[in-house]
Amino acid sequence: MIKTVVKDLFRNQERFKDQTVQLSGWIRTLRDSKTVGFLELNDGTFFKSVQVVFEDSLENYKEITKLPISSSVSVEGVFVPTPEMKQPFEIKAHKIVVEGLSNPDYPLQKKRHTLEYLRTIAHLRPRANTFSAVFRVRSLASYAIHKFFQEKGFVNVHTPIITGSDTEGAGEMFRVTSLDLNNVPVTEEGKVDEKKDFFGKESNLTVSGQLNAETFALAFRNVYTFGPTFRAENSNTARHAAEFWMVEPEVAFAELPDIMDLAEEMVKFIIGFIFEQAPEELEFFNSFIDKTLIERLKNAQESDFGRITYTEAVELLQKSEQKFEYPVEWGTDLQTEHERYLSEEVYKRPVFVTDYPKEIKAFYMRANDDGKTVAATDLLVPGIGELIGGSQREEREEVLADKIKELGMSEEDYWWYLELRKYGGTKHSGYGIGFERLIMYLTGMKNIRDVIPFPRTPGNADF
Amino acid sequence: MIKTVVKDLFRNQERFKDQTVQLSGWIRTLRDSKTVGFLELNDGTFFKSVQVVFEDSLENYKEITKLPISSSVSVEGVFVPTPEMKQPFEIKAHKIVVEGLSNPDYPLQKKRHTLEYLRTIAHLRPRANTFSAVFRVRSLASYAIHKFFQEKGFVNVHTPIITGSDTEGAGEMFRVTSLDLNNVPVTEEGKVDEKKDFFGKESNLTVSGQLNAETFALAFRNVYTFGPTFRAENSNTARHAAEFWMVEPEVAFAELPDIMDLAEEMVKFIIGFIFEQAPEELEFFNSFIDKTLIERLKNAQESDFGRITYTEAVELLQKSEQKFEYPVEWGTDLQTEHERYLSEEVYKRPVFVTDYPKEIKAFYMRANDDGKTVAATDLLVPGIGELIGGSQREEREEVLADKIKELGMSEEDYWWYLELRKYGGTKHSGYGIGFERLIMYLTGMKNIRDVIPFPRTPGNADF
Repeated sequence: MIKTVVKDLFRNQERFKDQTVQLSGWIRTLRDSKTVGFLELNDGTFFKSVQVVFEDSLENYKEITKLPISSSVSVEGVFVPTPEMKQPFEIKAHKIVVEGLSNPDYPLQKKRHTLEYLRTIAHLRPRANTFSAVFRVRSLASYAIHKFFQEKGFVNVHTPIITGSDTEGAGEMFRVTSLDLNNVPVTEEGKVDEKKDFFGKESNLTVSGQLNAETFALAFRNVYTFGPTFRAENSNTARHAAEFWMVEPEVAFAELPDIMDLAEEMVKFIIGFIFEQAPEELEFFNSFIDKTLIERLKNAQESDFGRITYTEAVELLQKSEQKFEYPVEWGTDLQTEHERYLSEEVYKRPVFVTDYPKEIKAFYMRANDDGKTVAATDLLVPGIGELIGGSQREEREEVLADKIKELGMSEEDYWWYLELRKYGGTKHSGYGIGFERLIMYLTGMKNIRDVIPFPRTPGNADF
Repeated sequence: MIKTVVKDLFRNQERFKDQTVQLSGWIRTLRDSKTVGFLELNDGTFFKSVQVVFEDSLENYKEITKLPISSSVSVEGVFVPTPEMKQPFEIKAHKIVVEGLSNPDYPLQKKRHTLEYLRTIAHLRPRANTFSAVFRVRSLASYAIHKFFQEKGFVNVHTPIITGSDTEGAGEMFRVTSLDLNNVPVTEEGKVDEKKDFFGKESNLTVSGQLNAETFALAFRNVYTFGPTFRAENSNTARHAAEFWMVEPEVAFAELPDIMDLAEEMVKFIIGFIFEQAPEELEFFNSFIDKTLIERLKNAQESDFGRITYTEAVELLQKSEQKFEYPVEWGTDLQTEHERYLSEEVYKRPVFVTDYPKEIKAFYMRANDDGKTVAATDLLVPGIGELIGGSQREEREEVLADKIKELGMSEEDYWWYLELRKYGGTKHSGYGIGFERLIMYLTGMKNIRDVIPFPRTPGNADF
């Protein structure tokens, strides 16, 4: 007898033919006549379930036929190919042991539930088809990212979650504290006595690991972060969460086009990995979530991404016949409707927009010679809009110091960031990709709450 | 001309023989006579540096000879094997371009610095040999963990960082808030008005992803988390940090011995991966940090880990002639000195201690039939003490509910955790491994502050 899992059965059908196997899993459906029963067993290792046939010769036949959905069982039986049936094989059981009873009020009965309802049972929703597929793809995409960068020799750096810095020079941050909020210690001036807090000063949850990653890029050349980041913005949209994961590669001796090449290669690698590892999940999404998903991903994988400057993009948008909700004007940020129009209607594939006006981009981006723009890029993709944002970093110490002053930021807070430019600074560039947005792109899911295991949004930190 | 990196040169010396290559990196050392100069170039892709020879025929010869250490340059030159020299090859440069000047006050001059001093320049220390090695090993160990679990089909689950739950039923947590601490809103009773906070209730930084991971194990069978966790404990020791990363696999249909097998296999896999990928770094640690490191790791890789019950371990310790600072008595937790004695002196290899008294272990661990112990295990390793802690989880709904009541915990807070037992719960087990402790084990480094890029400890959240 071979102890195995459902994935192995599906992937190695030849090997298991006529073998006796042992499986454990949860019952998805169950039906029976007086003498024979059928149950679909899902063990979570594979998107599909396996059909188990059992006859009334089993001594606990009656007990099995009465099991509530989602009960867990272990099954011993023979692998029988069934080429004439819908499923390619089934297991003829000669023994079924009940591992754990479920309950008739199990919330995930066969009828379809709304995604909104399923969010209220986040502890059970990974057992539903949609979330089984989403979270398996999420795990695979996470691995694809590590694989892509590690095989290129990138060093993975765990940048800090708790920080005294504020990368964007703006952005609403969560405060981290060990102070008793019912009894906040105050100074003589009546302000919070920050010295009494755990870290001896105000500290917050990070909004980006980039500045820290730069210190490592200037030691290891090629590095990347992959970790949680936070925004305390009170926006209740389908695209925003208070806690989300971000991937941020940072490359020394690289200019803007170098990291655009890297980003394009990375996106194609991830898509390829998902097609290879999760074809059943992609088929499911394409059938039930987004009918154009596979076509869109294949197209991205096979096309050369477009490249256009912000200035050219603005001209294109202004000349277009398209009605936009927001007007397009040089100097303002592109809205999702503009980004999607560019990638979906004009380019019909992913497109990099480069060289944005300096006023709408972050302080650390490298000033272009035109005095008006910075060496920044956003990757826009059909169905999503912005997927990646990156830039060449300002490596000139004086230019950077002037910028920090100009924006009224505190030079003291950035002493170590400036020192990177003093001690062998060099051209370097990097980008950030919101991991959840990537998962939405790969699955067709439309709400960020449905691609995070336990989403955190305003008013919601359950589970 | 081949654009390449130092790692490729060292790993493929045959291929590069007599080829012209282009490299970029930072100058580690520089010396010259009137007509010829030598510089060691390190580009961060490899532990070792490459020797670059340049002659006064270079038009900027003088400029190059005067560069401060850590300046960044790009070099074009020919790869020349030097079998008679200490280094296996060198680059005869015909062009050197200065990318970024360093400064004569660069803090990492050739003389050795204390680890304590280097912590104060965490933005530069990855350029020092020790930290170059530590953080490359950290990155490789991180990848080894993903590789190990993913190739076994485990689903990586990103459990939440911000949480309303407290896994251990104790433990000091950091508060996360968007409230203004200078102006905390209060209820009519004069208490913090938690409803006004971002999530509408008190929320904290997670101390463990385990309870959340269990929900996924009961859907996907094999899962693991790998993310940051937090403790607001005011302990200033070499082993404690406020922010650290943890790996937590969780396996359905698994009993305690199953996850001990898994842990043993994982530790051996990681050690093997580091030997394969970072032999130069291990040699360095063995020479300069811990002379017994390689022997200890090889021994762990090649031995069968010991297995002993807590009760037997206590008897062994009590019978030993060893003088301990803390007395050993059945019912109390083992101290690091006991753990190290067991693995270093008694077993001389890693050893699993199992079946601890229920009073000293967490509420979710499965009660053994003896009524006194739980199905818990710690893996003790030479040089470290406890490296891994795991257990079989209590899958019996009533036993768990009783335990929660007995400990005065709130059943309401755990409604979803209890429901996992109601809807097809099954035997399941898992363990946690502190990632920093693993890195200390792999490198011989003695202080947790030296294996985290930017450590967070009481009074310190710099960078």
